[in-house]
Amino acid sequence: MVKNHTLKSIHRNSKTVYLDYASTTPVDERVLKVALPFLKQNFHNPSSLYKEGVVVKKRVDEARKTCADFLKAHHNEIFFTASGTEANNLIILGVFRKALSEGVKKPHIITTVIEHPSVLEVCAYVERSGGEVTYVPVMDNGIVDPREIKKALKPSTVLISVMYANNEIGTIQPIRDIAKLVRHYKKVSGRGTGEQVPSETVPATTTGRGGKLARQSHYPYFHTDASQAVQYCEMNALLLGVDFLTMDSSKIYAPKGTGLAYVKRGIKIESLVFGGGQENGLRAGTENVFGIIALAEALKIVEKMREKEGKRQAVLRDYLFSKILKDFPLATVNGDLKNRLPNNVNVCFPNLDAEYTVFQLDAHGIACSSVTSCKNLSEDSSSYVVEAIGKPECAKSSLRFTLGRGTTKDEINYLLKTLKNL
Amino acid sequence: MVKNHTLKSIHRNSKTVYLDYASTTPVDERVLKVALPFLKQNFHNPSSLYKEGVVVKKRVDEARKTCADFLKAHHNEIFFTASGTEANNLIILGVFRKALSEGVKKPHIITTVIEHPSVLEVCAYVERSGGEVTYVPVMDNGIVDPREIKKALKPSTVLISVMYANNEIGTIQPIRDIAKLVRHYKKVSGRGTGEQVPSETVPATTTGRGGKLARQSHYPYFHTDASQAVQYCEMNALLLGVDFLTMDSSKIYAPKGTGLAYVKRGIKIESLVFGGGQENGLRAGTENVFGIIALAEALKIVEKMREKEGKRQAVLRDYLFSKILKDFPLATVNGDLKNRLPNNVNVCFPNLDAEYTVFQLDAHGIACSSVTSCKNLSEDSSSYVVEAIGKPECAKSSLRFTLGRGTTKDEINYLLKTLKNL
Repeated sequence: MVKNHTLKSIHRNSKTVYLDYASTTPVDERVLKVALPFLKQNFHNPSSLYKEGVVVKKRVDEARKTCADFLKAHHNEIFFTASGTEANNLIILGVFRKALSEGVKKPHIITTVIEHPSVLEVCAYVERSGGEVTYVPVMDNGIVDPREIKKALKPSTVLISVMYANNEIGTIQPIRDIAKLVRHYKKVSGRGTGEQVPSETVPATTTGRGGKLARQSHYPYFHTDASQAVQYCEMNALLLGVDFLTMDSSKIYAPKGTGLAYVKRGIKIESLVFGGGQENGLRAGTENVFGIIALAEALKIVEKMREKEGKRQAVLRDYLFSKILKDFPLATVNGDLKNRLPNNVNVCFPNLDAEYTVFQLDAHGIACSSVTSCKNLSEDSSSYVVEAIGKPECAKSSLRFTLGRGTTKDEINYLLKTLKNL
Repeated sequence: MVKNHTLKSIHRNSKTVYLDYASTTPVDERVLKVALPFLKQNFHNPSSLYKEGVVVKKRVDEARKTCADFLKAHHNEIFFTASGTEANNLIILGVFRKALSEGVKKPHIITTVIEHPSVLEVCAYVERSGGEVTYVPVMDNGIVDPREIKKALKPSTVLISVMYANNEIGTIQPIRDIAKLVRHYKKVSGRGTGEQVPSETVPATTTGRGGKLARQSHYPYFHTDASQAVQYCEMNALLLGVDFLTMDSSKIYAPKGTGLAYVKRGIKIESLVFGGGQENGLRAGTENVFGIIALAEALKIVEKMREKEGKRQAVLRDYLFSKILKDFPLATVNGDLKNRLPNNVNVCFPNLDAEYTVFQLDAHGIACSSVTSCKNLSEDSSSYVVEAIGKPECAKSSLRFTLGRGTTKDEINYLLKTLKNL
């Protein structure tokens, strides 16, 4: 009952058929209800000494614990940021700059060609700043082959960053396999010091020169941007085997303006933003209490709804795919059909002007997208992700429909009808 | 009428006598009313192509224009961040890293010893990263002598960062005088290139080597962190003569989580956060639309209330000062009485344990602070600002009361009565 009520109220907020949930989500009213007091009576600074401040601090601590529980992590492994973008920056630049400060020459990062701009642009900056980046390809199904990661590993590698699920084509990457591979690599070889150092010769407890090597031998770390995966995939950080993980509130029915970086205990990285000692000294600035409380509440709801909603949306997704492929015999699916987010439909319609079609669908009250909205609109409107899966001819002819809690079969049917009429 | 209503409603939110407005402010209900739709029906991503996204983008653009108008600036000089802290980081690190990338050797920054941690900690990082920082002292009245800035200037100086008003003792710095001095210095000397280059020899239009010198000769820039000054001081950026300016929403009755960096047209600095091309490519991450709309609305209200509220609070401040000095003959005022924010009362009570007194006042329903809350609480609780004005014996014996829109004479009298009884 509560759920139905909420679904209805989320949906009421959008007058159109909203099929762009991967871009951003409406705020769940349950989330808003819990978080709003922190804009009103509980407005106080959590760093202040008096009881109102202490109350707020306690609620921030509880929210941190909620987020940690969600990831099966410890509360001191959770760091709040202003966005998933900032979390990606904090992690990648934090590892890179830390490695530089430890004397690692030309720190090397491995990532994929289909990452979000907030990873790719950071990597481009790393390249301009004395680092090295290998962009591994993906297979035609939009999934990275772990062997490509393995091939790219070298002694100077400090970080591997592979997104959990792609924002455009929804393909889910083999995070656990890559983590296993990284662990294996760490076991059998020296790392990050620029030379092969068998791990036995560098006991972790040694101090001095040996200690330094031991510290460096923690490299390479493994990061996954899970922004799109949070609602649908396994989120146990230990099971995943990652050292770092990124989340974004605006993709999970919480307000824009909050992100989260999971940083495994014991790992030291450089800060991105310096100042008052908030977030255990890693990220300065008065806490966005409202946003933090909202993010934690949103995760509680995700936890409850994950299984049912995932199944429900997968059914709608498969229905939409099958109808489109039937109605448009030349259309092709972008990305793997099986290892795919339950809410992602991305289809290439040969020779279609996708951007123009987005406007046409908009005129019919349907909100969807062609390429990612997280890209400068003044740049060209072609999809580097669709190109990367070997379909350059589809880069400007693909439409992305991403479903959400408010999506109904009626809406999908309306979309199908409208598509046919165009 | 509207005003009275709002004052009452702000005040109702805090059950205690809240005298810590410099730490953070409650959210004005008028601000909340205007901004809330952007958490509800207008939740869309401003980068999306359909009409709902375009509507949101338009409102973000309007908010940017409102902020620009407030500073008598251009809309493309306004960059939204997640906090004043982030804006300070963006500006200082942005100038420093840009200078490094242009080949400036050991870029030099001048700041004061009483800046906020979000400036001082960034400066400490600059020192660790190949830069040089001069921390100029302040006079015993808590105001910087512009001649100290002048003395510190050298060819490698790329930035001068002086806060507009101090967060602890409320002293207002001579920003216009410093700006004048910097302009004069730029006129008569070569800058940033490590050698004296008379400006006539470096025409701005020259390309090649001359052009590079000309570009570098824009140094030094002048930045002011105006976070505490916004409500009370002249905020015309051109009149102030600054190149950069920082604001924070949480100090002006808007939600925590949004800040603003003013960057004068034509100045190029390095980004802090990379990704999608938001904020004209300078600061990536989906816009915190709710926070941005709220910040703009809060500035409109500041504009309207500034004169009256400034005067009203100054009267209360002077009343509180005079009563304290009468009741506690050994008490002394920290910082200049004239060049001071109208809402700041900071007093040294010899031999008082300030932190303990904050707890005692808290028990009596009064919220105030000893040192800045923007400092790691695990660090010592002594005030570096009070030390810097030549009163080390007061560093742990000073109380700060900061007034706001909700403060009444009754509250001040209650505070006075409680102080006397302790």
